[in-house]
Amino acid sequence: QMLSEKFGRGSKTIDAELQNRIDSLRDVQRKYSDILRLARLLNARLSAVFQTQRALSDVFSELSAKSTDLHEEFKYNADTQRLLHKHGDTLLGAINFFISNLTTLCTKTIEDTFQTVKSYNVARVEYDAHRTDFEGMQANAPRTEAQKNKLENCRKEYEKQKLKFERLRADVQIKLALLDENRVKVMKKQLLLFHNATCAYFSGNQTGLEEAVSSFHVRLKS
Amino acid sequence: QMLSEKFGRGSKTIDAELQNRIDSLRDVQRKYSDILRLARLLNARLSAVFQTQRALSDVFSELSAKSTDLHEEFKYNADTQRLLHKHGDTLLGAINFFISNLTTLCTKTIEDTFQTVKSYNVARVEYDAHRTDFEGMQANAPRTEAQKNKLENCRKEYEKQKLKFERLRADVQIKLALLDENRVKVMKKQLLLFHNATCAYFSGNQTGLEEAVSSFHVRLKS
Repeated sequence: QMLSEKFGRGSKTIDAELQNRIDSLRDVQRKYSDILRLARLLNARLSAVFQTQRALSDVFSELSAKSTDLHEEFKYNADTQRLLHKHGDTLLGAINFFISNLTTLCTKTIEDTFQTVKSYNVARVEYDAHRTDFEGMQANAPRTEAQKNKLENCRKEYEKQKLKFERLRADVQIKLALLDENRVKVMKKQLLLFHNATCAYFSGNQTGLEEAVSSFHVRLKS
Repeated sequence: QMLSEKFGRGSKTIDAELQNRIDSLRDVQRKYSDILRLARLLNARLSAVFQTQRALSDVFSELSAKSTDLHEEFKYNADTQRLLHKHGDTLLGAINFFISNLTTLCTKTIEDTFQTVKSYNVARVEYDAHRTDFEGMQANAPRTEAQKNKLENCRKEYEKQKLKFERLRADVQIKLALLDENRVKVMKKQLLLFHNATCAYFSGNQTGLEEAVSSFHVRLKS
């Protein structure tokens, strides 16, 4: 069946609406994976910035203790860099939580639906093969008892495959609907967390940052 | 003279107070070079963060245009990331200005004083060599006319070297004083710029960031 489809022969059962929904899910998965990749990169690069700020605050601090002439200037720089890398850890915790939830969504939740889509595609090919057999046999109007028996068996097999195919199509439709609902719920929450934590950190709002993190139950590395 | 000093013979003219000031300048140069190295690293790492924020704002923006269900969530994230990397360029400009001024201080201004210190050290060795010669000759109370002439020549040479040594010691003292004044002036200004620009950026104060930068006449890459 797959071969005859490849060579343009044989008829193929097409559910255009369902196929569109599957294609657009694949697109969503691709785009969310882009976000995931960039969020991981952002996390690594911010972490490198915070390390440098820690080292800078140490040097400034040492110079502040040693210098009489620039004591104040080194001190306020040491304090600022220390605050920035300290609060930075909270921001990294929030971004890590975002990454972890998006990873689950992309590699488990969406992937699970694609497994059902795969089974559905296999069932579709088998169903079309049996349907083509049955239709061909029916067109050659069977005359002998043996021919009639063969047609009857073929019809039974065809209907069994049809049921299986229709059950899997319904499965895919249900999973797609549930996934869509779940995806929107997860992303709404995660995008809000990501935004609130980012805004709070980059506006020097430490209270806001703590609140963003605790309202999303982010577990921070101690 | 250097050899006999190395083997613990010969006497060495020591200006302990001046030597302390030279040693502490060497320490200052080392510490400021640490700041310089870390500031360069911070600049490179922040620049990498801003690049990622730019890429993130592009993906969020694309998804905001495509999605109906999460349009708002993607949009405010796109806007925030765009603002952060846009203002980031101003911060990088300020840090670059700080780096450029510290580089001049460490590799030109301080280095210039060390060149004078080097000449002073050479003159000190030469002076001590001639002094040792002269003192030795004087101790062996010369009797003949030839010996007296030799002593007189030796004394002249010794006094010429003494003058040269004292002139260079005065040069070093003046340069150290001027350098100290200049160093404190430059560092006060640069540490204030660095602090104000950092605080303004990380508190989301774009006006403050622009003000910090323009008050220090930082030329930004267009």
